[in-house]
Formats: sequence, structure tokens, C-alpha cells
Amino acid sequence: MVLLIEKTFEISLLYDFYGDLLTPRQRNILQYYYEDNYTLGEIAEEINVSRQAVYDAVHKAERALHSYEEKLGLLKRFRQRSEEIKRAEETVDSIIAEYGGDAGLAGKLAAVKRILNGLEE
Amino acid sequence: MVLLIEKTFEISLLYDFYGDLLTPRQRNILQYYYEDNYTLGEIAEEINVSRQAVYDAVHKAERALHSYEEKLGLLKRFRQRSEEIKRAEETVDSIIAEYGGDAGLAGKLAAVKRILNGLEE
Repeated sequence: MVLLIEKTFEISLLYDFYGDLLTPRQRNILQYYYEDNYTLGEIAEEINVSRQAVYDAVHKAERALHSYEEKLGLLKRFRQRSEEIKRAEETVDSIIAEYGGDAGLAGKLAAVKRILNGLEE
Repeated sequence: MVLLIEKTFEISLLYDFYGDLLTPRQRNILQYYYEDNYTLGEIAEEINVSRQAVYDAVHKAERALHSYEEKLGLLKRFRQRSEEIKRAEETVDSIIAEYGGDAGLAGKLAAVKRILNGLEE
């Protein structure tokens, strides 16, 4: 069960990064399956194909997402950057904790934190 | 001429982001053309196809790169992030200029700058 949740989470992250490279039909099926939690049978009924065809389409789309990640590594890089940004934010926080009494300095540090925050998206 | 240089620069940036999504043959041809500055005729001789086939392949590969950018926008986002990071670095620099006499503070600010620098890649 934990593995299933992890897999679902991984696929939705990959979908966020590479969904626009899939076909509209692939996006549609993954959305039914992972966002709306339809069963394969329900999707089959919805789009009027066999359950096996839905199963194949889900797996083909998942393989495509993994293949894009192998080639471009956007998710891996996103995670690395998030770690780095978190480290920078913690360092800025520790400066604020120590020197925040100085209003001019506090204002500038707040500006740096806003930018770091924006970089996390 | 300026336009040509700009176009070449744009294509090599797009190539950096999306080259791994092209076929080995497309990568090969774009490298001959944009990195090694071969003429279409020279590439045609090198890989033993017609000049027209090379021309078509170059344009198809360029269209693929632009299409990936339209879908994923990595180059656009990279440029926006670079601007943001530059702004953060300038703010940190202005703090260093004003408060750099404090060694503890200077050390922490240097750490933030190192992280910002790493994020620029």
C-alpha cells in the first residue's frame, strides 16, 4: 500500500513535469486513473474501449513519463534545487534570528527570502 | 547577420535543454551544423545523403526543439530564474557591502551566495 501511494505520488510529479509532452488521450487517461481514481473498468466504460486497452495505455503513458525523466531529469534536478534553496533559506533565517534587530538589514534579508521562496516553484 | 547569430544562439540554448529528446541522427546533424559550422553540402557528403535531405532534417530538428519549448518552457523559465537569482545576489552583495565588517555575518552571507551561484546552472 505504501509502495502504491509512493508510485502514485511519483507519477503525479512526473506528470506535472512532462504531462504536456503526452498526447491529449494519454493525459486524459492518466487523469482519470490518478486524479479521479477511476478503476480501469470505469475508464474503459467512459472512453468506450476495452479494459485491457486502458491498462496498456496507462502503462505506456507511465513508461513515456519515466523515459522523459531519464532523458531530461527535471524531477531529480527539482529535488536537488529544493534542497539547496531550503539550505539557503535556513541560513538567511539564522541571520535574521541573530541580526534581525537592524531594520535595514531585516528588510533586505526579507527580500532575499521572498526571491528564494519564488525559486522553489 | 545579427539575426543569424541570435538564431544560432537560441538554437544552441534549446539544444542544451532538449537535445536529449532528439534522435541520435538529429543530434548529429545539428552538431555538424551549429557546433562544427559545416555547410549543408559538407554534412550531406559526411553522412551520405542529399543536401536537400540535410536541409529538411535541420529544419525538422529545429521545429522539434521549438515545439518542446512551447510545451515545457524550460528556456523561458531558466531565463526568469536567472533574473531572480541575480536580484538575490545583488541584494546579498549590498548587505555584504554595508555589514561585511562583521565576520560571522559575512561568512553566512558568503554561504548564501555560494548556494545562489549553484542554482544558476
